[in-house]
Amino acid sequence: MPRSVREIADFVQAQLLGDGALQLTGISSIRSARQGDLVFVGDERALPAAIASGASAVIAGEFARHYATNKPLLLHPHPRLAFARAAGLLLVLANRKPGIHPSAIVHSSAQLGSDVIVDERVVIGEAVNIGNRTWIGAGCVIGDHAVVGEECRFYPNVTLYAGVQLGNRVVVHSGAVLGSDGFGYVRDEKTGRYEKFPQIGRLEIEDDVEIGANATIDRGALELTRIGRGTKIDNLVQVGHNVQIGEDVVIAAQTGLSGSAVVESNVVVGGQVGIADHVRIEAGAILGAQSGIPSKKIIRGKGVIFWGTPARPIREYLQQLAVLARLTKK
Amino acid sequence: MPRSVREIADFVQAQLLGDGALQLTGISSIRSARQGDLVFVGDERALPAAIASGASAVIAGEFARHYATNKPLLLHPHPRLAFARAAGLLLVLANRKPGIHPSAIVHSSAQLGSDVIVDERVVIGEAVNIGNRTWIGAGCVIGDHAVVGEECRFYPNVTLYAGVQLGNRVVVHSGAVLGSDGFGYVRDEKTGRYEKFPQIGRLEIEDDVEIGANATIDRGALELTRIGRGTKIDNLVQVGHNVQIGEDVVIAAQTGLSGSAVVESNVVVGGQVGIADHVRIEAGAILGAQSGIPSKKIIRGKGVIFWGTPARPIREYLQQLAVLARLTKK
Amino acid sequence: MPRSVREIADFVQAQLLGDGALQLTGISSIRSARQGDLVFVGDERALPAAIASGASAVIAGEFARHYATNKPLLLHPHPRLAFARAAGLLLVLANRKPGIHPSAIVHSSAQLGSDVIVDERVVIGEAVNIGNRTWIGAGCVIGDHAVVGEECRFYPNVTLYAGVQLGNRVVVHSGAVLGSDGFGYVRDEKTGRYEKFPQIGRLEIEDDVEIGANATIDRGALELTRIGRGTKIDNLVQVGHNVQIGEDVVIAAQTGLSGSAVVESNVVVGGQVGIADHVRIEAGAILGAQSGIPSKKIIRGKGVIFWGTPARPIREYLQQLAVLARLTKK
Repeated sequence: MPRSVREIADFVQAQLLGDGALQLTGISSIRSARQGDLVFVGDERALPAAIASGASAVIAGEFARHYATNKPLLLHPHPRLAFARAAGLLLVLANRKPGIHPSAIVHSSAQLGSDVIVDERVVIGEAVNIGNRTWIGAGCVIGDHAVVGEECRFYPNVTLYAGVQLGNRVVVHSGAVLGSDGFGYVRDEKTGRYEKFPQIGRLEIEDDVEIGANATIDRGALELTRIGRGTKIDNLVQVGHNVQIGEDVVIAAQTGLSGSAVVESNVVVGGQVGIADHVRIEAGAILGAQSGIPSKKIIRGKGVIFWGTPARPIREYLQQLAVLARLTKK
Repeated sequence: MPRSVREIADFVQAQLLGDGALQLTGISSIRSARQGDLVFVGDERALPAAIASGASAVIAGEFARHYATNKPLLLHPHPRLAFARAAGLLLVLANRKPGIHPSAIVHSSAQLGSDVIVDERVVIGEAVNIGNRTWIGAGCVIGDHAVVGEECRFYPNVTLYAGVQLGNRVVVHSGAVLGSDGFGYVRDEKTGRYEKFPQIGRLEIEDDVEIGANATIDRGALELTRIGRGTKIDNLVQVGHNVQIGEDVVIAAQTGLSGSAVVESNVVVGGQVGIADHVRIEAGAILGAQSGIPSKKIIRGKGVIFWGTPARPIREYLQQLAVLARLTKK
Repeated sequence: MPRSVREIADFVQAQLLGDGALQLTGISSIRSARQGDLVFVGDERALPAAIASGASAVIAGEFARHYATNKPLLLHPHPRLAFARAAGLLLVLANRKPGIHPSAIVHSSAQLGSDVIVDERVVIGEAVNIGNRTWIGAGCVIGDHAVVGEECRFYPNVTLYAGVQLGNRVVVHSGAVLGSDGFGYVRDEKTGRYEKFPQIGRLEIEDDVEIGANATIDRGALELTRIGRGTKIDNLVQVGHNVQIGEDVVIAAQTGLSGSAVVESNVVVGGQVGIADHVRIEAGAILGAQSGIPSKKIIRGKGVIFWGTPARPIREYLQQLAVLARLTKK
């Protein structure tokens, strides 16, 4: 919805230079900016292009203070962050009205909060509880006894197994499956056949988590799988049973976490990383893309980048690659 | 459903010590056990905690025979296996009544066995055949002429392409896609364009297979893709066209099998493994996580672990890693 | 639909030897061929089996010219390509009649072309535009303002986010998610929390693209994600925000492309490859399975195969593996 430049500056705590009365209606890249758009400049070299663009206002760093322009400037020490926040205010995420689409099938025992939006063909099971202002997109299936907090967003065709619990403001993208059975079997040595080990544990996802398209997160076997507050999980990530993920963890696409792995808070995991069972990644470590952590290993080192399979500190890995390259040059 | 301790002991062929008349109503981890729960102890060190827990009975190994307790003990040489079996008896998987939900769309030519459960919004195509007591979860789409055996379980939002054939007791988790087109094209060298090679073969999945959430299994190009009896496939696994998988194979999450690969019985495949086209993994081999098998290779060695890309016996791989580490220390 | 041998020969521009009046009704492998089937032989050694098969006609190379047989032969310099084209003519892909299934929910403002097929339980949003003869399989959800060209094929349970644009003859397999949010956050260094960077860009997919089951393709952050004409994307592939993919690119299963990667035309990408952010793969390069391209790297070399992580020319990689093997033998 439209906001004045001054409103935005106040909201993101930026210093306003210039006309605060102009109306902003959206955000844009510099290249595509039109009247009403807000843009941002993280790097001084891009400032002239931003000023010359069609945008109505520019968020920039201190470096822009003395630039001669009539365009309103919002100075902020972290322009990209200020821009992200402004976008949250300017963008209206859904123009749908609260209510339950007549094609949705909601069990009579389900409890829905106020201003919930339930789209076409949604199925909501027995005793489900959904918080205020949550949006459930078309085709989602919410299993019996699931609990979904307030202001969550479910894009179409998400599946929640029975009993899964989500906090507030959780965003789940299309095709994600939450609470599926873990991969646990016991082999009967006499017959060689695998029998299913019970997968009846819980899955708890805390506030402000975002889960990517077609990601899969298994419930615990007997106990709990847990995703901590603020953690962000990309598309096609697999989280196995009993995994414990801390707060503000970032996990890029196609990474897999095996059963009972622990990932502490503030860890950053690249894409296609493999984390084996019972691994512990301690707080603040960084795992490079495609690295692999063997079973039961502990990875320790705040801010240290690990790479390769088995993962080592990146400096070691690069040295090894260099030695190898030298040996073949002889 | 509730069972007496004695019933469970008989069912799993355990030796009962203590009161067999107590009623069991569920299973649990030791930590969360409450009255009515059955727990198991695989490792003697966990026995005191199990005895002290709220559980009503404990499955344990021979090591528990002389432990002083009033709690009923079920002695079994493989406690974890006995527990898994007991769970199968105690857990009621679905409390839904047989029948077809009025929102389901079932083609008039489809044949459904007795006590089939068809949930909300399911679509069942022309001439589909579904066996007795099979459950089709909400939102599943079963393509024309598909054949599904008895006592199968389809979690919500599974897709079966036309003509796919499943045996009995097959479990398919949400989002899985069975029978999609393989990735086959022919390049026209004159234009550089790719033309689709026909993908009209079949997909056969035998009895007791379990398929994880968002896994994808392609039909044959002209012939058959086959998954053998008892094989277990984890989330996000990709199985290409014409692949042949034997019996009692275990494939962990995010592994991919390219076209025409053969995986013989009793093979164990870790997570994120890549198996290229026309590879043969012979019976009983073990592929470590993230390993890669290049095109047309044969992997042989019952019980031998292979690792790395290209995969070698793990001893070789570890030696190579050690040599590399030593060279960089100089 | 049935075609005479002569019609097929003319269509694929093959030289016909023998009876052109015979009717063909389908295609087959040599092994399963029955009367009415067309088969092909790419390799001279398979010719006797094809002639002896139940097939009614055989596409083969020049090598078959003087083979003594009464069976009609269609000589073509590229038998596999000719077979693929003939299959396109002989196979009827769907026997459904054009029309909108009564269970589909189509917004009143949506515009559907002529002979469109909309299957059971499809949801089509506001102001969506769908071209002539396009098929939308059961359970698909097409977001507001999406544009889908002519003769596209959507298998069941595909999700299109709002505003996604597809060209003509695009094929999308089940479970694919097109236009989901990219993985972009800004960290607030004071609190350690991640805030969502806006993901409001577009996704454009050009003519003749095919997208595999459960693949995920993110929209641009502020600008565009683009998949060029004729590109083929396999199952479970991840394409990040702002990625630019050229024409006639082939990407095998489970490969991931991070944000802002560029893949030029005619590139071939194996399975499970990881392409980091801002990488450029120049025209015609070939990336071996499981290889990894680190952030911002440029890969150059038409027809050159790259392998390993970080990816090098395959000759270098194999030399390094050989050196390593030799060192451990000492």
